Amino acid sequence: MVLAIDRRIGKHAILLAMSNEQEVSSLTIPVQWKSCIGKVGSMDSQKVVAAIETAAKREGIIKTEGYRETHALYHAIMDALSGVTRGQVQLGAVMRTVGLRFAVVRGNPYEDVEEGDWIAVALYGTIGAPVRGSEHETIGLGINHI
Amino acid sequence: MVLAIDRRIGKHAILLAMSNEQEVSSLTIPVQWKSCIGKVGSMDSQKVVAAIETAAKREGIIKTEGYRETHALYHAIMDALSGVTRGQVQLGAVMRTVGLRFAVVRGNPYEDVEEGDWIAVALYGTIGAPVRGSEHETIGLGINHI
Amino acid sequence: MVLAIDRRIGKHAILLAMSNEQEVSSLTIPVQWKSCIGKVGSMDSQKVVAAIETAAKREGIIKTEGYRETHALYHAIMDALSGVTRGQVQLGAVMRTVGLRFAVVRGNPYEDVEEGDWIAVALYGTIGAPVRGSEHETIGLGINHI
Amino acid sequence: MVLAIDRRIGKHAILLAMSNEQEVSSLTIPVQWKSCIGKVGSMDSQKVVAAIETAAKREGIIKTEGYRETHALYHAIMDALSGVTRGQVQLGAVMRTVGLRFAVVRGNPYEDVEEGDWIAVALYGTIGAPVRGSEHETIGLGINHI
Amino acid sequence: MVLAIDRRIGKHAILLAMSNEQEVSSLTIPVQWKSCIGKVGSMDSQKVVAAIETAAKREGIIKTEGYRETHALYHAIMDALSGVTRGQVQLGAVMRTVGLRFAVVRGNPYEDVEEGDWIAVALYGTIGAPVRGSEHETIGLGINHI
Amino acid sequence: MVLAIDRRIGKHAILLAMSNEQEVSSLTIPVQWKSCIGKVGSMDSQKVVAAIETAAKREGIIKTEGYRETHALYHAIMDALSGVTRGQVQLGAVMRTVGLRFAVVRGNPYEDVEEGDWIAVALYGTIGAPVRGSEHETIGLGINHI
Ligand SMILES: [Mg+2]
Ligand SMILES: [Mg+2]
Ligand SMILES: [Mg+2]
Ligand SMILES: [Mg+2]
Ligand SMILES: [Mg+2]
Ligand SMILES: [Mg+2]
Repeated sequence: MVLAIDRRIGKHAILLAMSNEQEVSSLTIPVQWKSCIGKVGSMDSQKVVAAIETAAKREGIIKTEGYRETHALYHAIMDALSGVTRGQVQLGAVMRTVGLRFAVVRGNPYEDVEEGDWIAVALYGTIGAPVRGSEHETIGLGINHI
Repeated sequence: MVLAIDRRIGKHAILLAMSNEQEVSSLTIPVQWKSCIGKVGSMDSQKVVAAIETAAKREGIIKTEGYRETHALYHAIMDALSGVTRGQVQLGAVMRTVGLRFAVVRGNPYEDVEEGDWIAVALYGTIGAPVRGSEHETIGLGINHI
Repeated sequence: MVLAIDRRIGKHAILLAMSNEQEVSSLTIPVQWKSCIGKVGSMDSQKVVAAIETAAKREGIIKTEGYRETHALYHAIMDALSGVTRGQVQLGAVMRTVGLRFAVVRGNPYEDVEEGDWIAVALYGTIGAPVRGSEHETIGLGINHI
Repeated sequence: MVLAIDRRIGKHAILLAMSNEQEVSSLTIPVQWKSCIGKVGSMDSQKVVAAIETAAKREGIIKTEGYRETHALYHAIMDALSGVTRGQVQLGAVMRTVGLRFAVVRGNPYEDVEEGDWIAVALYGTIGAPVRGSEHETIGLGINHI
Repeated sequence: MVLAIDRRIGKHAILLAMSNEQEVSSLTIPVQWKSCIGKVGSMDSQKVVAAIETAAKREGIIKTEGYRETHALYHAIMDALSGVTRGQVQLGAVMRTVGLRFAVVRGNPYEDVEEGDWIAVALYGTIGAPVRGSEHETIGLGINHI
Repeated sequence: MVLAIDRRIGKHAILLAMSNEQEVSSLTIPVQWKSCIGKVGSMDSQKVVAAIETAAKREGIIKTEGYRETHALYHAIMDALSGVTRGQVQLGAVMRTVGLRFAVVRGNPYEDVEEGDWIAVALYGTIGAPVRGSEHETIGLGINHI
């Protein structure tokens, strides 16, 4: 495939999001790429979006000024949340909560340098009732040109 | 968490779906669990559903008779497709195609034996225009009690 | 409630759709109201819409000329299909089929004569895999001013 | 159909939800089945979910411990809410409120004993603006294996 | 088309919503039609709905008594919000805000007088992050019989 | 607003899509911007997507090689179709057809040159039953960074 085999940005992001701290240290991503990881748990979908945006800006994955890169990241987050929520992008409003690890990765996953930078947002964790243990795993991935 | 740390069924399924044949052989899942992997590429969402159902029945992950287990698998597939399509569960109708590897895993991911069997459907691959290379990665995970 | 207790149009429509031929004969709806019932089974959502529209026009529930009443009926059908499909208004595209009885009822369910005519579309039957018995019940109700 | 004619669990649930107290007393459901009914009115979708879950646990329809049965009920509630809201599972956020009667029924609706228990959640009532009388009827049904 | 060329109600509504005060004064709509315009900015979708409903009633576009016309307007607003939000009718819950101008127009856009009155709700403005300038344009149009 | 007042790309695109040939000739867009207009009528949503993509490439609005610009355009089209279909991005599958004029505009709508190029896809026309005259207007707008 024209997606370079070692630069599958979505796979890299998912592995980062699914790994614990020890495992993360053994993962490699292409040099020149940027990435960050973080955690967020909430019944409030707004807080999930904010946590990822804040981390991505603080870690220098996207520019803090201007709208363009924020827009690219935002829609990648929305796509990732779609996978996590499977239908309605709602948490507390339908009585459920998430505990997520997230990873944001930026780089060019294609053979062709002209494709420029893309951004991947991966979410992995649990979704369920606001009761300890009443939850199952959930995953979401959003990819956008940036 | 009450999800047992080595029995995270969704993570197992995603790793199976993201691995090539060589990598798969180094993965382990809990004994007594059942799993299968496969591939499907199509612009027709019906074919994606059918390919996963057929594989899961042929490989003995779910019973071929009766509705109960088929129902559990079906909704897990729908949830996984939700993550892949992010909004509208449509492929050809909106001019896009997928090339997916899938994994279906069955087992009890919880500490408590009373939780019984659950099923995880993981999808990993590419989605995009029906033109070679005009695609990016996509992921979906559905989990259900069975 | 301002909905008159004996003129709950949605309840009338659902009872019509859920009843077999014998039971239907014992149901009563307000005089001056119009209603029709029918059956449709298909993997093709278009055929479900067409069957209901055709019946409603043939039985004189709505006018065959003009757009206004067709528009009112169409959106009531869409709302009813939403309940039947619960998320994505898709049948064959996600490998499922329906066997439905439908009822269309027209009348004024409110105490106030000024509220004019409303239309209710009720659907009751089964949804599931295209395999005999691999199905469960499903219901949908759409109500619109006409 | 392989759904036993007198054990149509969805129809039973809908009839329970649509009946007033007097009518309910004349309804019968299969012995060995469990059921409960209740009422909830709110602009807050979370309260609707919570009211049904609480009633189902308090009345012993599902187990209070463990996640499995809670998960089955939760998705049946979501499916029922889909029919009630027809598109976006939102109430106050889009300026509407519901007044609902609900019924939860548990039993095996199939000829084959192997199909085990299923759960049906039926909702019937009104949806509309937060103004007395500015509302029409609405229905939702969710069915899941448990 | 059977829609009369000078009475395209949706086009009239969109032009009203997209025009500044100066431009509005040069627009014409058919005599006998009714219209109003207004502004609303919020992260709260409920406030958007309320602002439009309140204006339409205050300006006499729809009747303040009874449900019928309120129902017609409500669904036109929902359709317009669908275009503005493109997928999930959510603002603050997914960390975004809107600044909108709206127009509500009422009249018969068809050649045939029998088609009666229809209502168009047009929304035009910006959607984006709750940060000045981090936004792009958005449009929505809903049309219903009334 | 930071969107430059004369470079509101969405408004330009909507005006192009809503104008007949004579009106189009009197519209102006910023020099250096690119745009194209076209028509498509179909019950097949795939054909609508294809018609817009083909025109945008043929007219040089986006590059024909590489995926990046195709991806940006694709998601703008999807957003525009969301407004046109209001809920389910489906046409023939739910028995409706569209007759649309479309415009694609490319340029930088922001004060800041750093924001680079954005793309707007505007759709305007009719949606309704596959019967002449049984239709009302519909609009959609999608905007993306490119
Ligand atoms: Mg955007
Ligand atoms: Mg089901
Ligand atoms: Mg319509
Ligand atoms: Mg679940
Ligand atoms: Mg309504
Ligand atoms: Mg994409």
